[in-house]
Amino acid sequence: MKNVETRNPRPSGNTLPPAASEEGQLASVVAALCEAVGGLKRPMDRCLDRQPLPSRDAVVNIVEALRTVLFPGYFGTAELTADNMTFHVGSTLDWIRRGLREQIKRGFCFACDDHREECDGRAESATRQFLARLPAVRELLATDVQAAYEGDPAATSPDEAIFCYPGVLAVISYRLAHELYALGVPLIPRIITEHAHSITGIDIHPGAVIGESFFIDHGTGVVIGETCIIGKRVRLYQGVTLGAKSFPLDANGKPIKGIKRHPIVEDDVIIYSEASILGRVTIGRGSVIGGNVWLTRSVPPDSFITQAQARQNLFESGDGI
Amino acid sequence: MKNVETRNPRPSGNTLPPAASEEGQLASVVAALCEAVGGLKRPMDRCLDRQPLPSRDAVVNIVEALRTVLFPGYFGTAELTADNMTFHVGSTLDWIRRGLREQIKRGFCFACDDHREECDGRAESATRQFLARLPAVRELLATDVQAAYEGDPAATSPDEAIFCYPGVLAVISYRLAHELYALGVPLIPRIITEHAHSITGIDIHPGAVIGESFFIDHGTGVVIGETCIIGKRVRLYQGVTLGAKSFPLDANGKPIKGIKRHPIVEDDVIIYSEASILGRVTIGRGSVIGGNVWLTRSVPPDSFITQAQARQNLFESGDGI
Amino acid sequence: MKNVETRNPRPSGNTLPPAASEEGQLASVVAALCEAVGGLKRPMDRCLDRQPLPSRDAVVNIVEALRTVLFPGYFGTAELTADNMTFHVGSTLDWIRRGLREQIKRGFCFACDDHREECDGRAESATRQFLARLPAVRELLATDVQAAYEGDPAATSPDEAIFCYPGVLAVISYRLAHELYALGVPLIPRIITEHAHSITGIDIHPGAVIGESFFIDHGTGVVIGETCIIGKRVRLYQGVTLGAKSFPLDANGKPIKGIKRHPIVEDDVIIYSEASILGRVTIGRGSVIGGNVWLTRSVPPDSFITQAQARQNLFESGDGI
Repeated sequence: MKNVETRNPRPSGNTLPPAASEEGQLASVVAALCEAVGGLKRPMDRCLDRQPLPSRDAVVNIVEALRTVLFPGYFGTAELTADNMTFHVGSTLDWIRRGLREQIKRGFCFACDDHREECDGRAESATRQFLARLPAVRELLATDVQAAYEGDPAATSPDEAIFCYPGVLAVISYRLAHELYALGVPLIPRIITEHAHSITGIDIHPGAVIGESFFIDHGTGVVIGETCIIGKRVRLYQGVTLGAKSFPLDANGKPIKGIKRHPIVEDDVIIYSEASILGRVTIGRGSVIGGNVWLTRSVPPDSFITQAQARQNLFESGDGI
Repeated sequence: MKNVETRNPRPSGNTLPPAASEEGQLASVVAALCEAVGGLKRPMDRCLDRQPLPSRDAVVNIVEALRTVLFPGYFGTAELTADNMTFHVGSTLDWIRRGLREQIKRGFCFACDDHREECDGRAESATRQFLARLPAVRELLATDVQAAYEGDPAATSPDEAIFCYPGVLAVISYRLAHELYALGVPLIPRIITEHAHSITGIDIHPGAVIGESFFIDHGTGVVIGETCIIGKRVRLYQGVTLGAKSFPLDANGKPIKGIKRHPIVEDDVIIYSEASILGRVTIGRGSVIGGNVWLTRSVPPDSFITQAQARQNLFESGDGI
Repeated sequence: MKNVETRNPRPSGNTLPPAASEEGQLASVVAALCEAVGGLKRPMDRCLDRQPLPSRDAVVNIVEALRTVLFPGYFGTAELTADNMTFHVGSTLDWIRRGLREQIKRGFCFACDDHREECDGRAESATRQFLARLPAVRELLATDVQAAYEGDPAATSPDEAIFCYPGVLAVISYRLAHELYALGVPLIPRIITEHAHSITGIDIHPGAVIGESFFIDHGTGVVIGETCIIGKRVRLYQGVTLGAKSFPLDANGKPIKGIKRHPIVEDDVIIYSEASILGRVTIGRGSVIGGNVWLTRSVPPDSFITQAQARQNLFESGDGI
């Protein structure tokens, strides 16, 4: 192996296995792993009391089905006609209702230390309220699709934006997840947005509040934190962070949960690629934030912020990059 | 639910469902969604006139098959020998030809307002021309693989670059998509590059023109815009944006499509991580652009640009980050 | 096609196919592609001598199975109880042992120019040593999960971090891959970390050495190079690069492999979003590096580095962004 010489040393604690039979070795590894599980304080209780965790695959299938009823013909089967659409949307929604209720129940059980008997009723209610919100979500998404078409000269039609744009896909998932978050459903909203994050590189926390006509172009690396508030007609480019700059700790040195710690971005703001805006600051209406800026203070409306002037160097003057 | 208190308020427009039967509620949601579809101006017409949209899954399968004929043994079945290779490549190409022609036809229909009867012939011709280009694409890709091996000290062989490197995968997809783009095929090229974007985080528009021996290392967050022109032996790192800085609007306030608005990067340029270069500027031959730079002007050959000096602060002097 | 006019010119070398029969055209493309393969110096030899390459799909399945034995109940089947856990872990580990040994053998063969008869024994030994390390890896990962919960105010429980956080997923894959890397196994470690890179956007080279309680939040775009050394309780945000700034070339102009060229990050350091730190520099214990900084020098303990002050511009004063 030609690379052996350049390898890092093993981390300490490495114990070579004794020269034992394969079965014997395997048995000791199994015992050590199962003992480790038993020694965990809390996480592992979940799986031992027969309350199944939510299923990521099931949640992803439900989100994909939701996309087909929100944008029939673009996602899922392409054989829709005006005649069969009502049947298609109706039967898909019925399937969604049953699957989603089950996953929401598992989410409530996951976060619930006792009173598990209430999880059923809460799941039933949350599912019903979620479905009632779908037409309003559909309206919001239509404004987002139009914003994508108008915000990108490379877009040849709104169809292309629905069909191909990762920013549109991430916003669909976010708007669905946000409805569940607002209904108090644990875990499921995060599974939905993390699935979109995995596909698109765009990480929108389901707790963020985002106005109409929102467009993220390209999008890889975008992070929008839990307590962000974003106005109407805002446009972000890839790599933009709307994050927290620091957070207060409690008496035990743990971060206090739930503090408002992310930016407020007002209407008609544009933020260019790789800008990081951190803390509970306000970006005033109509501002433009240039790329690669690190910004931890509020700026008034119509501000125009850019990075400090780059340096031009002579190759002779230094030691390379 | 411990988190309820810290949640954002519901967006306005929230209407709780009436206390109705499940069937009644579902029916009203279905009706509202189908009405929304009918009310859309244009996008939804597509799915109602029995012209199936291109299938993302089919396009992705075709791209994967193309990889197996371009790099037999690295992708797809690993059981190739010198004897069976011609048979394998031939039968796979035949399968590709038929599937690609169908998807290209759907792409033409997607962009075509009338004269649908012409889509068949155009698809036939574009497919034929595309296949004829494959040996030339293969030659270009061989230079890209070699550039990856030579440009990354961590690469142990060109094989590893073909087998593992996301930058190589993204460039394979781009070079295939670019050929279809140059033949005027709508939508399919973008589906191909967006699939690679989803897997690698590298977003190369199929319209960009990129010379031989091109290497993107790591790659997550790279964006290369539609009208970029990139020379030979160029190397980019993760997070580099070659984008547009602004775009002129037409009389209706919509961006004018098709303007040259992205950078020209000449031969032998290296651009480090997270640099953003925007607008129709020229990065002169042999230049090195440091990381995290925001650059919106041209620089002459052999330039060496770095970010302004960072500040070193005392912890005592401020309010944290 | 409305876009034809704005397209870039075809790259040179375009040869339109002659007006031939479909079969004739296909045959000539097949011949050209197979000839290209034959003309390759080295890569293509691999697939022609009946030594199958490692299977990405098989390696990915093994990693997923490893996750289920490290965190039973979170990944894979959710029907575990205290009674059946030993059986589950044991049978899964047995399946892993056989599959992993085969893939490791293929990895050794891939890197091996002759002495192929030794690959079997080396694979057997490496597999055995890897499995013996699993309990220690499990202990390290428990510290990482706790760090995620404590480092993110949005995390509602350690369970949520295991279940949803891409940073945790990437670190699980890295810690497994690092063990194989330390045992000298070629290619398989890189396949494992590149799979995690594809899912999470986090690219950790298996050669990096990383201490306990490591947390990457959000994570898209993070790059950690091959020779990085990272201490305990380090926290990184999305887009952070710990990379190489340049590398010496050998007499043939090729980069010399295996040089120490990436940063050393000491204990208790925090690095904010999109910072790029390049070269064999040391970030002293307890330092905080602000976002979007480009840093190519060492900083002492407790340093606090931020980007140069951004510029506030008047819209009237310039030519836009």
